[in-house]
Amino acid sequence: MADNDVCMVQFQPGGAIVDAPAGTLIIDAARQAGIDLNIPCGGQGRCGRCAVVARAANGTDAIKRRSTLRLSADDIAAGYALACQTTITGDVEITIPPQESIARILTSDKTARAIELPFEFDRDRQPLRSYLLSMTPPSLDDQTDDWSRVQAALRRATGWENGFAIDLPTLRRLGTVLRAAEWQVTAVVEWDTWDRPAGPPRVVDVQPGDQTSHLWAAALDIGTTTVTLYLVDLVSGRVVAQAADYNGQIRRGEDVISRIIYASKNNGLAELQRLVLDTINGLIAQVCEFRKIEPQQIVKMVVAGNPTMQHLFLALPPASIRLAPYVPAANQYPTTRAGELGIDLNPQATVDCLPGVASYVGADISSGVLGSGLCSVVETNGDGLPVLFLDIGTNGEMVLGDCDWLVTCACSAGPAFEGAGVYHGMRATLGAIEEVWINAQTFEPTISTIGQEQGERPRGLCGSGLISLLAEMFITGVIDKSGNLNFELYDQAKLATLAELPTFRGPRVRQGEHGGEYVVVWAEDSATGEDIVITAVDIDNLLRAKAAIYAGCAVLAQSVGMSMDMISTVLVGGSFGKHINVEKSVQLGLLPDVPWENFQFLGNTSVRGAYMALLDREARQRIAEIARSMTYLELSADNSFYDQFTSALFLPHTDITLFPSVAALLERET
Amino acid sequence: MADNDVCMVQFQPGGAIVDAPAGTLIIDAARQAGIDLNIPCGGQGRCGRCAVVARAANGTDAIKRRSTLRLSADDIAAGYALACQTTITGDVEITIPPQESIARILTSDKTARAIELPFEFDRDRQPLRSYLLSMTPPSLDDQTDDWSRVQAALRRATGWENGFAIDLPTLRRLGTVLRAAEWQVTAVVEWDTWDRPAGPPRVVDVQPGDQTSHLWAAALDIGTTTVTLYLVDLVSGRVVAQAADYNGQIRRGEDVISRIIYASKNNGLAELQRLVLDTINGLIAQVCEFRKIEPQQIVKMVVAGNPTMQHLFLALPPASIRLAPYVPAANQYPTTRAGELGIDLNPQATVDCLPGVASYVGADISSGVLGSGLCSVVETNGDGLPVLFLDIGTNGEMVLGDCDWLVTCACSAGPAFEGAGVYHGMRATLGAIEEVWINAQTFEPTISTIGQEQGERPRGLCGSGLISLLAEMFITGVIDKSGNLNFELYDQAKLATLAELPTFRGPRVRQGEHGGEYVVVWAEDSATGEDIVITAVDIDNLLRAKAAIYAGCAVLAQSVGMSMDMISTVLVGGSFGKHINVEKSVQLGLLPDVPWENFQFLGNTSVRGAYMALLDREARQRIAEIARSMTYLELSADNSFYDQFTSALFLPHTDITLFPSVAALLERET
Repeated sequence: MADNDVCMVQFQPGGAIVDAPAGTLIIDAARQAGIDLNIPCGGQGRCGRCAVVARAANGTDAIKRRSTLRLSADDIAAGYALACQTTITGDVEITIPPQESIARILTSDKTARAIELPFEFDRDRQPLRSYLLSMTPPSLDDQTDDWSRVQAALRRATGWENGFAIDLPTLRRLGTVLRAAEWQVTAVVEWDTWDRPAGPPRVVDVQPGDQTSHLWAAALDIGTTTVTLYLVDLVSGRVVAQAADYNGQIRRGEDVISRIIYASKNNGLAELQRLVLDTINGLIAQVCEFRKIEPQQIVKMVVAGNPTMQHLFLALPPASIRLAPYVPAANQYPTTRAGELGIDLNPQATVDCLPGVASYVGADISSGVLGSGLCSVVETNGDGLPVLFLDIGTNGEMVLGDCDWLVTCACSAGPAFEGAGVYHGMRATLGAIEEVWINAQTFEPTISTIGQEQGERPRGLCGSGLISLLAEMFITGVIDKSGNLNFELYDQAKLATLAELPTFRGPRVRQGEHGGEYVVVWAEDSATGEDIVITAVDIDNLLRAKAAIYAGCAVLAQSVGMSMDMISTVLVGGSFGKHINVEKSVQLGLLPDVPWENFQFLGNTSVRGAYMALLDREARQRIAEIARSMTYLELSADNSFYDQFTSALFLPHTDITLFPSVAALLERET
Repeated sequence: MADNDVCMVQFQPGGAIVDAPAGTLIIDAARQAGIDLNIPCGGQGRCGRCAVVARAANGTDAIKRRSTLRLSADDIAAGYALACQTTITGDVEITIPPQESIARILTSDKTARAIELPFEFDRDRQPLRSYLLSMTPPSLDDQTDDWSRVQAALRRATGWENGFAIDLPTLRRLGTVLRAAEWQVTAVVEWDTWDRPAGPPRVVDVQPGDQTSHLWAAALDIGTTTVTLYLVDLVSGRVVAQAADYNGQIRRGEDVISRIIYASKNNGLAELQRLVLDTINGLIAQVCEFRKIEPQQIVKMVVAGNPTMQHLFLALPPASIRLAPYVPAANQYPTTRAGELGIDLNPQATVDCLPGVASYVGADISSGVLGSGLCSVVETNGDGLPVLFLDIGTNGEMVLGDCDWLVTCACSAGPAFEGAGVYHGMRATLGAIEEVWINAQTFEPTISTIGQEQGERPRGLCGSGLISLLAEMFITGVIDKSGNLNFELYDQAKLATLAELPTFRGPRVRQGEHGGEYVVVWAEDSATGEDIVITAVDIDNLLRAKAAIYAGCAVLAQSVGMSMDMISTVLVGGSFGKHINVEKSVQLGLLPDVPWENFQFLGNTSVRGAYMALLDREARQRIAEIARSMTYLELSADNSFYDQFTSALFLPHTDITLFPSVAALLERET
């Protein structure tokens, strides 16, 4: 039993006990117990990293929360409290969760949805299946030709009563395989392709013996900046490997416009096609190496991507996409064969490019709408309010609607959110800084790096890290609302205080080689041996990117006579990394200011839609229907976009009333 | 008014008048009038070349025919008489027709059926059509993509309500063509292919402006020895050019077996494919040059040929065709594109290989049965008796039936009937000797050469020339019934008589460089400056070829319990030349001894079937049905074939009772 003014505080794990006067912050009591809690934001209750579980020793209230900014109602019910924002009022047991678990409870931190079977898996709805065929060899009494014999066996195996199709190269191999395998083979049959639903099923491959335990296919998303591949086993329906890499075309231009210009010159189109094929073939090699299979075993690929990427992939001239009236060669593409395109799969594998909507809203979005589950979210919400689906890549595309209606538009964001075109940007792989907190007093950052548990040191900043960094710089005053670096931060008094910090190396805001910059990681702590910085130019790029995306959403809402706060749910797709911090995205003005719980971060929705199309013929049809039904707004023909863009070039926005939660935070901070 | 014993004879044209004693042969009266009639057979009434028209001056009978062997009842009614077999009995006017017309009236000489529209031509049943499309250009108010715009225009032009397909290479060109042609283009649409009847129609080509006045396609027959191509204008439905050439594969083997062996070694298959493609591309170049069009304007090709030829054409391994149990890779082939195969047509042109029946009865026969009109012949005959269809090429294939049932088999004849594999053999082109008559007294030949009217001199012997020559040699005793050359022909007495002939150069039967031979043309009369001969080896080849074909027919009849004389009609296909002399073919024992009027010589029935398939989708389906419905006899599993072959190695046959007309002729000659 504690004295009225002194409370007994026990810390778990470890069991250390200290006496603390009532009113002591948990963080100070912990320090007394020799426990140094992580407070990246400097103890302001912003980051939520110091969340602990407090349990009163005798059933009475033993703590008092000053701020619950990071905590949900469920968190509070479970006893969570922020150590920097909570005072001790009675005897209490404090449990400090591992850092890992803390990350999980942040309600504003959205983890990309795991890749799992997106629906109940029905093999009869798959576009491909493999069948084991055992045949009686030919004789003088039965001179049936090889191909007819295989078809007869297939009819027995499948119940299909008519003919099958076969490509010439497969037929050329047939006799040899049949005889070498003594008339027992596995036939891979493609039941239909989107453009030939009524045609005969096609034998894609004939393999010796029983090879029906796996059937390999690939889902691909060709982004302007990032190319993502899933290896799928159609027998289990599962993604068994994945790989991503920067699109090799980047060296010929960072955005679609510069690629189109490059493609229109000399041999540019062929070169750009070659570059992206090299990237894709590299990804195929990676997943095959991982699963110890041969690329020739992969018998189908479904491809999503924006129209320019699909045009360049298929070597379709993209020039008319760039020039008014902005018309692509096609929004629906012919089904081709891997061999015809030069992709390292089974040469007879169908390559199915998903259909798009318009010159700047492509298959990534029609596929993404399906992949995001927009329609089922609308159904679950049941409030009749529209859902916003955002795919944030080099181009930002947005879709607003309730599934009965869908409007869409696109704007150029640039590659910054994919970690490209930024001085120390990188993809969300090992060594990428994916989260940053800045201490508002010291301006010193705390970072979270992908792979740090395995001892990985930081190499650069990925998209989510850049968002996090920029928001922190804004909230802590390292930059102002126009994004300008504050060189006045480190006055004499501040420097004197900071000099006492053992970790202080010098002012983080400085004039660097390329102009103003903020040092995120000093050279001695980085994997590369040089300072990791964000430059004024980077900040400007990010500001323009976020402004473009917000402006696109605003125009979309405007076009249907809605305000942004009428949006019920925001579905966010894009390859930022595994997480995106919604609160910080809202603080930047990248995402609209709706309650955090109404955001879903879905990761790469485009490749997810392609994956669904691989598993289910109806999903493939659904994507085509979505593409057909979307209404496209051409922003180049819409003056309001430019106005919205200009207004959104501030942090979070010229009109702060659009961001009430950010306004409240800023008020508290100042 | 003539004296009782002296008749007045006037010859037309010219009007020369002579008095001739009653009983004078017309030929002698003509000689008196200074007119030298052509009597290649030496005045024995065999050749019919001296046919004239006799008209009595005063209504009474003025002539007496001794033999009417060459004359039909119609001929006699029209006044025709053989000058060497007809005596004058009264005043008469004799009209000598031009040589050209004489050839026409020979009842035993069958001219290949002219290439004409094989049926009433219905453009709606064609597999391809072209459409003129005029489109409104895109604008900011109508951002429809190029391909959707073309499809919308096509729906308006055709009434088809669903989507169209397009190949990637065509789509790649689309935008450029549309803009260069200011949105007025001709689209070539393939409505279906045999293996995709229910699939969407495909846009094969898009050409600037209005190009709907012609639509080019090709029908091809790939023979082991001869390759034949028709250029067809699908707008009129007519064959507008044709070309034929020896198959370039001949240098790698004369028959299918040696080709298969060659194909099975090293790179043999690829080489043989290359060789036939070169031949085909050469033929395409020829017809295009003739019509002044570009090969790229040809948008479809239908291909007939025997199974080995089709396998080599498609580079399908043919090895199993040769080895028991004689099974081809396929009897139905995938539809491919010209570009995929390396054929100089529009690269997107469909190449449709017609279906076959078995390893040695291929698309040439299923196509040939349709092309020969077998079913309609059966219908016209109305006697319920079966029809024999024979395709005489390097392989001889035969079909017997009444259309409700069809049995078929094949045997190897060798290339002799196509003028190949024979010392002075050649194709039926300019300079080919296509008919030979031998004077039974002098053994001097009279020849008919293709192009002789234009001054063409003989270069060699084509198939019909060889048949004609061999039969004449047999009938006149130059060879015996085993085919041995008679070196005893020229005894001292004979030589003394012959020396008086101004044209006599020496004995025609002699020992040449390559053994025994008969000189058909002396060097001074030939275009090549060397003697044109037929050698003992050639004769042996021809004998084996004719024996194989007759034996095949005999086995076929036997298999259905019929004798050869129950055959109502014989349809003969093959590329001998423009004519085939049925009587001589019967004399050789190549064709069965049925009345001459019951033969039809159809020329190349295989390419004709391919032509019909180009014009009519139902014809294409019909060929597939014919292929499916034929019963195939495997001769290698049938001992009776060898017996029949051995019996047929004599002229005309070991069993002369099978050839009553020949027996009668031989009796008369001796």
